[in-house]
Amino acid sequence: MTSNQTRFRVRYAETDQMGVVYHANYLIWMEVGRVELVRSLGFQYKDLEQNDGLYLSVIEAQCRYVFPACYDEEIIVETSLAKVSSRTLAFSYRISSADPDRLLAEGSTRHIWLNREWKPTSLPESYRSALQVAVNAV
Amino acid sequence: MTSNQTRFRVRYAETDQMGVVYHANYLIWMEVGRVELVRSLGFQYKDLEQNDGLYLSVIEAQCRYVFPACYDEEIIVETSLAKVSSRTLAFSYRISSADPDRLLAEGSTRHIWLNREWKPTSLPESYRSALQVAVNAV
Amino acid sequence: MTSNQTRFRVRYAETDQMGVVYHANYLIWMEVGRVELVRSLGFQYKDLEQNDGLYLSVIEAQCRYVFPACYDEEIIVETSLAKVSSRTLAFSYRISSADPDRLLAEGSTRHIWLNREWKPTSLPESYRSALQVAVNAV
Amino acid sequence: MTSNQTRFRVRYAETDQMGVVYHANYLIWMEVGRVELVRSLGFQYKDLEQNDGLYLSVIEAQCRYVFPACYDEEIIVETSLAKVSSRTLAFSYRISSADPDRLLAEGSTRHIWLNREWKPTSLPESYRSALQVAVNAV
Repeated sequence: MTSNQTRFRVRYAETDQMGVVYHANYLIWMEVGRVELVRSLGFQYKDLEQNDGLYLSVIEAQCRYVFPACYDEEIIVETSLAKVSSRTLAFSYRISSADPDRLLAEGSTRHIWLNREWKPTSLPESYRSALQVAVNAV
Repeated sequence: MTSNQTRFRVRYAETDQMGVVYHANYLIWMEVGRVELVRSLGFQYKDLEQNDGLYLSVIEAQCRYVFPACYDEEIIVETSLAKVSSRTLAFSYRISSADPDRLLAEGSTRHIWLNREWKPTSLPESYRSALQVAVNAV
Repeated sequence: MTSNQTRFRVRYAETDQMGVVYHANYLIWMEVGRVELVRSLGFQYKDLEQNDGLYLSVIEAQCRYVFPACYDEEIIVETSLAKVSSRTLAFSYRISSADPDRLLAEGSTRHIWLNREWKPTSLPESYRSALQVAVNAV
Repeated sequence: MTSNQTRFRVRYAETDQMGVVYHANYLIWMEVGRVELVRSLGFQYKDLEQNDGLYLSVIEAQCRYVFPACYDEEIIVETSLAKVSSRTLAFSYRISSADPDRLLAEGSTRHIWLNREWKPTSLPESYRSALQVAVNAV
């Protein structure tokens, strides 16, 4: 299974008065992770929307919080493509801090493809085979 | 099981370029819901932090998205206290639009209590019994 | 000059690790304020977008922060329509806490109307006269 | 005047239903810019808070929007330290897209230093001289 690592620093805006990152922001980080995974496979989610009229809609999201992320820490989001079918996608995520190297959270998202009329649709074969490679790779 | 309903309108800031509410915002709405549920039970989460040094930390969050929320819609978050123990809490949420009356999402969160030193701690008996009432109520 | 007051509570998500509301959120609150001002004048910004293809684009925003807003406080946004022309709008805002009654911030935004092709456009006369009333009212 | 450039991609979460970046996010980007400017001068804002109990509070923010930022674009925030005194700081920002190279927005923020008791305070001389160098540099 291919995975992609993307890195960024925690923004002040992402913290809350508990002194750590507000939990909803991890879902935003997962979004950053899956966009970069798709880019690493040779295409861009942006083009799917603009050129193909395909929207990757989230139908389920889940996150288990292990250790709090702190302001200015370097975060690593490791994203894997867990499952691909013609109509759905599933990603899994491992979010950790770089220094110290520590697991912060694990999560997953499930998605369906929608067309411009907001109807469920299938991903064209060319894209699907590119994604399938990522699932099958060891 | 006691539940609390809280209502607000979707903000423009909460939408994304898909034309609907960005999915991470539902976790923020759940937070609004559980704060109002606690208030309806006669105390305030704010006081737990300030006066008792107790922090309700999220250890798991999950959301299933059924229908997209749109800008300016009136949203109803119905929050229930699913489980109370001395050290943990679990809430469940039903998020819907007011007009048309339509289920948008269902979710749940699990929490532990932390003290000012970020150590897991127990909720004092007085609070716990107030919460327990909400779980037992029919 | 007509003004509109809208009220809501500070969300936990809006705080940062300084223990108060993160400053960018005040711009979101201003957005909430101007949408409610427009609603109080008898129409909805949502309809301008959907039915008339008119988008109110921000070209300038400014905020002066006087006193920090805290978690769970009730916030009052008082919004006034400062200026209306065929192509531009200017709003001013007074953000305060309800209890204690205290000024938190003052700000302003300037806007232009864009059409569906993102070209500057004029607001139809019917809407403009409704807005003009709000500026002229004493 | 020393300036610092920092780069990142627009997140999907930062867009709104107008199809471009929601305007309040530019203030978050300015925060990212000034943190990186401070880091480039040899110290970290995080340490000022944790070790010295100094908080850089925003007292004014202003942004002029020139061209909309789009999803997935690479953004460049060029931050300059406009003014340093013992009690205040002022930054200016130039936000542009990398490709095409285009000015998106210009802004500024003014700040005061607060101590742990939320009282205005002076920045220790060692930090101030480091910042002053950045203002004086050509």
